[in-house]
Amino acid sequence: MTRFLLTLEYDGSAFCGWQRQTNGLGVQQAVEEAVAGFCGEEVEVAGAGRTDAGVHARGQCAHVDIQKDTDTRTLVNALNAHLRPHPVAIINAEIVPDDFHARFSATRRHYMYRIENRRAPLTLDRGRAWAVGHPLDVDAMNAAASHLLGRHDFTTFRAAGCQANSPIRTLDHLHVMRMGTAISITTNARSFLYSQVRAMAGSLKLVGEGKWTPDDMRRALAACDRAACGPVAPPDGLYLMAVDYAERSTSVT
Amino acid sequence: MTRFLLTLEYDGSAFCGWQRQTNGLGVQQAVEEAVAGFCGEEVEVAGAGRTDAGVHARGQCAHVDIQKDTDTRTLVNALNAHLRPHPVAIINAEIVPDDFHARFSATRRHYMYRIENRRAPLTLDRGRAWAVGHPLDVDAMNAAASHLLGRHDFTTFRAAGCQANSPIRTLDHLHVMRMGTAISITTNARSFLYSQVRAMAGSLKLVGEGKWTPDDMRRALAACDRAACGPVAPPDGLYLMAVDYAERSTSVT
Repeated sequence: MTRFLLTLEYDGSAFCGWQRQTNGLGVQQAVEEAVAGFCGEEVEVAGAGRTDAGVHARGQCAHVDIQKDTDTRTLVNALNAHLRPHPVAIINAEIVPDDFHARFSATRRHYMYRIENRRAPLTLDRGRAWAVGHPLDVDAMNAAASHLLGRHDFTTFRAAGCQANSPIRTLDHLHVMRMGTAISITTNARSFLYSQVRAMAGSLKLVGEGKWTPDDMRRALAACDRAACGPVAPPDGLYLMAVDYAERSTSVT
Repeated sequence: MTRFLLTLEYDGSAFCGWQRQTNGLGVQQAVEEAVAGFCGEEVEVAGAGRTDAGVHARGQCAHVDIQKDTDTRTLVNALNAHLRPHPVAIINAEIVPDDFHARFSATRRHYMYRIENRRAPLTLDRGRAWAVGHPLDVDAMNAAASHLLGRHDFTTFRAAGCQANSPIRTLDHLHVMRMGTAISITTNARSFLYSQVRAMAGSLKLVGEGKWTPDDMRRALAACDRAACGPVAPPDGLYLMAVDYAERSTSVT
């Protein structure tokens, strides 16, 4: 048995989310079926994070145990062949120790939230970004973001279905940047609560529109009350960009 | 009658190209029908360039004459409403003189060609870039590109259906840049021959793969023979980014 760590990219609009579901195709199921197609083994693919329906990934990570004798390059090519025509691809595979776990060994998650700040409907970016027509004040958004940095009780930005034991998280990075009409919110932390990034993005948008002051963000956080959160941003704009691990081999296919 | 210059963005994969066709929906037709829906006028929308089926635009330009009394903001919003659900949007409109012509007044066209240089199939970029698995040498591509700069007979890079009177063009910019697996080829000129950018991109890819030397590019150009051209790159990677005009008002919606 060999444990492989896979790096995955996918278009979330084609899936009901990462997790295997009964009401649609999860990315997890697509990958598990590709493994079965390759080596006939029934496996569980364990992801670093459970992205929601519509949420994209540029660098989701997942581990899988395979009995068949294979190498990373063969595995990547075979899984990608079996994954067609689904818009999910294995962009890397590496061999990891048997006690490595894609979710529990992860030391950091990196997300990006994309906003297209324009009145015109999206065309090439449809389903790939949140279209916000009202001009957003990025400086105000960054002032508000600074209140969320550090170790806090993030109950305000935690969705109802969250299964985490504690609402305490340490946010290490949260920054808003504009390039023309494109606004990107980048963030990273050891881990996030369920829907936390979309909840923060939705509240930051209120600040950008001038409906909240940066200080309203501080008060919303301090309230520790989900009702104090702004409307959660839609999934289309969210990308799981990368997952960090403390120890990781460097074999890149 | 007022002449408006429209700036358009579209996802080329949904259209049979810019031009009105009998075998599918052209972007031109979609816009003409939106104008009819807005004011009941049967108009011809004149584009700056005729993009092929599958070719995208971030900044196509076109002019249209409208009898109805309207302003740029109303026009943009109304056309975008009538264009739904087609993936084409008017991102700007401005009033131009009656003798302005989107095609003949243009002083420069800017194109980008996107390559994703990786073995894994595309997911989020499917239909948005050319996937090339063989590692490309960008320095060699730039050395080859330098041979195409300036005023030349581009017969080698001219497609069969080209209706231009002369194969002589002046290429002012052609540059290849890599960011990770993303390679972009940017180019601009007063005008291009039919399929010239895709023909140049296809030949540059041969250089990047090492199948051509940079000097082979010089020889291909000098041959003035279409048979000397590399395979034309697919339309998915091509974007008409912007069109320049000598005189242009600055009213931005």
